[in-house]
Amino acid sequence: MNSPLVADSGRVVEPSVQQARQAYYQRIGGSKLAPLWEVLSALVIKEPKSACQPALWHYDDVRPYIMEAGALITAREAERRVLILENPGMPGQSRITTSLYAGLQLILPGEVAPSHRHAQSALRFVVEGSGAYTAVDGEKTIMEEGDFVITPSWTWHDHGNDSDKPMVWMDGLDIPLIQALDCSFLERYPEEMHPQTRPAGDALARYGNGLLPLDYESPRLSSPVFNYPYRRTREALETMRRSQEWDPIHGLKVQYVNPVTGDYAMPTIATFMQLLPKGFDGDSYQSTDATVFSIVEGEGYSMIGGQRYDWRKRDVFVVPSWVKHSHHAPNGDAVLFSYSDRAVQKKLGLWRESRGNRQ
Amino acid sequence: MNSPLVADSGRVVEPSVQQARQAYYQRIGGSKLAPLWEVLSALVIKEPKSACQPALWHYDDVRPYIMEAGALITAREAERRVLILENPGMPGQSRITTSLYAGLQLILPGEVAPSHRHAQSALRFVVEGSGAYTAVDGEKTIMEEGDFVITPSWTWHDHGNDSDKPMVWMDGLDIPLIQALDCSFLERYPEEMHPQTRPAGDALARYGNGLLPLDYESPRLSSPVFNYPYRRTREALETMRRSQEWDPIHGLKVQYVNPVTGDYAMPTIATFMQLLPKGFDGDSYQSTDATVFSIVEGEGYSMIGGQRYDWRKRDVFVVPSWVKHSHHAPNGDAVLFSYSDRAVQKKLGLWRESRGNRQ
Amino acid sequence: MNSPLVADSGRVVEPSVQQARQAYYQRIGGSKLAPLWEVLSALVIKEPKSACQPALWHYDDVRPYIMEAGALITAREAERRVLILENPGMPGQSRITTSLYAGLQLILPGEVAPSHRHAQSALRFVVEGSGAYTAVDGEKTIMEEGDFVITPSWTWHDHGNDSDKPMVWMDGLDIPLIQALDCSFLERYPEEMHPQTRPAGDALARYGNGLLPLDYESPRLSSPVFNYPYRRTREALETMRRSQEWDPIHGLKVQYVNPVTGDYAMPTIATFMQLLPKGFDGDSYQSTDATVFSIVEGEGYSMIGGQRYDWRKRDVFVVPSWVKHSHHAPNGDAVLFSYSDRAVQKKLGLWRESRGNRQ
Amino acid sequence: MNSPLVADSGRVVEPSVQQARQAYYQRIGGSKLAPLWEVLSALVIKEPKSACQPALWHYDDVRPYIMEAGALITAREAERRVLILENPGMPGQSRITTSLYAGLQLILPGEVAPSHRHAQSALRFVVEGSGAYTAVDGEKTIMEEGDFVITPSWTWHDHGNDSDKPMVWMDGLDIPLIQALDCSFLERYPEEMHPQTRPAGDALARYGNGLLPLDYESPRLSSPVFNYPYRRTREALETMRRSQEWDPIHGLKVQYVNPVTGDYAMPTIATFMQLLPKGFDGDSYQSTDATVFSIVEGEGYSMIGGQRYDWRKRDVFVVPSWVKHSHHAPNGDAVLFSYSDRAVQKKLGLWRESRGNRQ
Repeated sequence: MNSPLVADSGRVVEPSVQQARQAYYQRIGGSKLAPLWEVLSALVIKEPKSACQPALWHYDDVRPYIMEAGALITAREAERRVLILENPGMPGQSRITTSLYAGLQLILPGEVAPSHRHAQSALRFVVEGSGAYTAVDGEKTIMEEGDFVITPSWTWHDHGNDSDKPMVWMDGLDIPLIQALDCSFLERYPEEMHPQTRPAGDALARYGNGLLPLDYESPRLSSPVFNYPYRRTREALETMRRSQEWDPIHGLKVQYVNPVTGDYAMPTIATFMQLLPKGFDGDSYQSTDATVFSIVEGEGYSMIGGQRYDWRKRDVFVVPSWVKHSHHAPNGDAVLFSYSDRAVQKKLGLWRESRGNRQ
Repeated sequence: MNSPLVADSGRVVEPSVQQARQAYYQRIGGSKLAPLWEVLSALVIKEPKSACQPALWHYDDVRPYIMEAGALITAREAERRVLILENPGMPGQSRITTSLYAGLQLILPGEVAPSHRHAQSALRFVVEGSGAYTAVDGEKTIMEEGDFVITPSWTWHDHGNDSDKPMVWMDGLDIPLIQALDCSFLERYPEEMHPQTRPAGDALARYGNGLLPLDYESPRLSSPVFNYPYRRTREALETMRRSQEWDPIHGLKVQYVNPVTGDYAMPTIATFMQLLPKGFDGDSYQSTDATVFSIVEGEGYSMIGGQRYDWRKRDVFVVPSWVKHSHHAPNGDAVLFSYSDRAVQKKLGLWRESRGNRQ
Repeated sequence: MNSPLVADSGRVVEPSVQQARQAYYQRIGGSKLAPLWEVLSALVIKEPKSACQPALWHYDDVRPYIMEAGALITAREAERRVLILENPGMPGQSRITTSLYAGLQLILPGEVAPSHRHAQSALRFVVEGSGAYTAVDGEKTIMEEGDFVITPSWTWHDHGNDSDKPMVWMDGLDIPLIQALDCSFLERYPEEMHPQTRPAGDALARYGNGLLPLDYESPRLSSPVFNYPYRRTREALETMRRSQEWDPIHGLKVQYVNPVTGDYAMPTIATFMQLLPKGFDGDSYQSTDATVFSIVEGEGYSMIGGQRYDWRKRDVFVVPSWVKHSHHAPNGDAVLFSYSDRAVQKKLGLWRESRGNRQ
Repeated sequence: MNSPLVADSGRVVEPSVQQARQAYYQRIGGSKLAPLWEVLSALVIKEPKSACQPALWHYDDVRPYIMEAGALITAREAERRVLILENPGMPGQSRITTSLYAGLQLILPGEVAPSHRHAQSALRFVVEGSGAYTAVDGEKTIMEEGDFVITPSWTWHDHGNDSDKPMVWMDGLDIPLIQALDCSFLERYPEEMHPQTRPAGDALARYGNGLLPLDYESPRLSSPVFNYPYRRTREALETMRRSQEWDPIHGLKVQYVNPVTGDYAMPTIATFMQLLPKGFDGDSYQSTDATVFSIVEGEGYSMIGGQRYDWRKRDVFVVPSWVKHSHHAPNGDAVLFSYSDRAVQKKLGLWRESRGNRQ
């Protein structure tokens, strides 16, 4: 890409000048100095263009590997038995976008993932299975397919599967962002599991019904509701669709919110659910928040950067920042969960979108 | 009351001096002037002490009058067929506290209360009946006993009763506050009823399930949820009680919130629901927000300013600002709805409370 | 005004019916009940229309009375030697608008006004004199003409005059609002004056220069800057006028802000300063916040409700809520300070304005 | 560091098992999958520990190189003639911390740096010289030593030097953060310089004196004040020091604020100024925001990670995240400017500090 910053990029610099500069660069290097003008065009670019690439994971392809992992290593030994969904444009970097991590975690019947806490915020989106639990600061929540569960920054959390079937969920974390800010902290709980402190379901009842405890003040920025059951979300979408307000790009799209502030459920990760009605043929869209999608229901395809990605239930795909894309559900209703760092970009005044103009 | 402001109040002022002052007061009166020092002790007082008095209305006593009103005047002629619950300390002022209004509204089967909008915010708390509706900006909600319904400032609203039984609800409005701020506006809808704009239940589904529409921005400070069904509130309280966290003063008390901000459901009126378990013997309490209570379930009594007020289901009582009081439910669970101007006082940094020290 | 709420106002109600209703009203009165339909049209009105009237006080007329007060009573005996600017539409109510109080306070050389604190917020706007001081929580600020000084809610404050000339300032308080909310508190300091806790000028330096102390958290909603010197405000206006952006209604108008929040300097009272350039012939305006003006420089006139009010330096006038008005400075620059309850109305979503359409 | 996450790190895994796992890793790699358990301990770490190293740049050493750059390339050709202060722990990455960039920019008399705008926020802290200017959206501000100037995200800005001396300032940008979020945008102004839109000094007068324009709403999150003159900051510190409140770690430290919100002056970069009185011997400190310091006055030294770094006027040094450090000014007053990403970490609920316990 020709940098607009180098006024005369392409201009031939006389060899003698270039030599003098190179010698100079050598000398200043020893003083921890470098010339901005040689790299500026790569640092401040015209529009988002990272190494992050569009990618899709078919659950049917991935599932066998997940189950194989169950045989290769125990949850206890692995601490977290997860296959990272690694962006092909950033191999070895354990990230799906420049700022976010994604993985698929397996917990087999009878297994537990021991209790720890870390500065990183995590979301769990249940892909397959029923009846395993996540506990946050000692309160359990039983998980079902489509449930959106959060383990907020610096809260003790562990997982277990008391059901008779394996459970698989997608993990979404802000690991790369925390690396960029260099503020990671981790602590392991002295015992394997945190003792139970509250009856299951307390948080959802307490904070998830249009009420808050008297004069409530939250200890953190994350939502005190840590399980947003799919049942409720799905019912809400069904009621809302009766108004027949379909966004040409998003269909019917909602965001999960923290009832204490109205902000996103997590301070660093925005999460969404959208319904595409049968026959939906979406207009194109760009936004600066690279987004990870997980298919909850139905099938369809997305055009991403001019290429077609077919998806069906349980598949995962990622759209990089500012890449033009659109969603299509020709054969039936489809429901898509998604997450991105929009929560960060909006707080910092950086988020942008560009709507429409089909291509 | 001896004013702490008049350093030497009670001191004998020489008659000649007093005469000179009186003559002076006469003269300056003509210039729209008055001496602060003669009234300061009445304007800036040691602690809240208005004309507002504790009072209780037994529903059994009031109900016959309400029904009689149904025969004396139609809802259409009355515009709103309401009996004002008038504080005995402020007769003729149409208020239950210094800043708030309360009334009991009757709608008979087949009746309608025509559509209008005003700057005043209103809450409707259903006391008796089932199946009547309130419509806000063209969306209906069917009301059941214990439902908390709001008609936000400057939203079109009308009421109707398609059921076969009379419905009675408590109206709570900020009429006296709007008078104090002198910012009342009123407009009548050109037709009797506002046309339907959305399917019933849309708002609750859209805003009341831990979700908000994508990038939602509210047009107002009030909650977009305009019916908080008692069924959900009651279930939440039942789940929360399992944690056995009983506040010695309030039992188990929650506030209704606006999911867009986490603030109270209305900008001018705070609303609460509390559960007193059987045998609850509350500690004493004072707060600067005079509060109106409506009994939803059970029976019991409150000590207010040293006097006992026995209450049962559907009764209404008011506790003035800063009057010491406590709640007691010796014979069984009781559920109390309440509202006050705490939402205003907190925004202005004026709210205070004093907990405990039984008396 | 004929209320639009009484659908059939003016309609003749049959005598027999009217008699029956009157009898009914009598009976329910004993039960602390009253019929809304008889008063609704007076409670919820089409637009603001209180008893508050436009009024103007010429300083030349008032000053002799102020000085006479200095002879009639000492500051110590009066506690605060103030002449209330009483709205002629609300005699005996000690208020200049429905929600705000105004007065002119005199402190003679060598006098002090003892230390106390109250829930009411107060502003002091210096009208005449130089060198007297106000102390807030033990920090003094020396006052000059045009200075805007605040004594926030529940802060200890006292005044003194170490100069050789009398000082007169306008007091603006939210006394009627605090009455409406019934949350007044008052405490006198054990000694006459609060001991000095900080060097004079500390607060302005600390909070008034685009800086805040490291990780500062304010203990209150009011600005920690308690003196906004006129010198700075005037210089700012002179620099801003070079941009030649004149609002057709307000000229060049600014609001005082709390640097911790960007909100108004006080939570209950909004304050403003505006410059009208020579020849300014303002367009008409309405707003729901009744406003008190004090002339700092120059002369001119305002049209208020169709009537002309001529003013000059040090005069005070009041514009009631929603009364159409305009400002005019035919002979030279004029500078006007003003205050209102806009800070309250905006927090509650009640404030409205209507611009222009000369009349 | 032994990861606490690998429950049994150090345990010997049987070769056969390890081989099976390696083969498995090979196979899943082709499906864009990777095993979390092999990298988890490097991704989620016990406490901040990036490649960022403590480093110091003596201005006396760097200045000759800066001036030499003036001969090697013109400002016009370089677009921005800047020497990057590159963290020795992250060579070739053009950053001084994991999230922030720093450089020293030279503008010679008569030179200009053409107008452009970008998503990145930039601060300019004047190190040497007097009289050059920065223009933001067409308003110029003349810069003096110690001035803190900001060019907010997506505002047009250019620089020029009409003085007869070279000017050098430190640039601080959030380039690495914008890379991590992949939301860079850049646009060049069609002409070399943006036309003047307002008289110089308008913004400081308009927004920097405890006032805001009537009903002002900011178009962005950055402060509308774009030059915080050192003269004012220094005077404020001199007045504040009279209170003799010395923080044992920071001396007398203030942060630059946005008068519209009270938040930091920029949404992504927090900036500070602190005064260390002669003889100051600071206690130790850790925080998660790696911080860049520039010495404005005096000399002294800092202990960083157990190593001593001597500094004097105009030197720059960096303290990585969570590295224990302390500041010392044995010979005289010292004044330090600093900046970090604390503004980001606080908005996201990630910021931590640990005070004291000398070592």
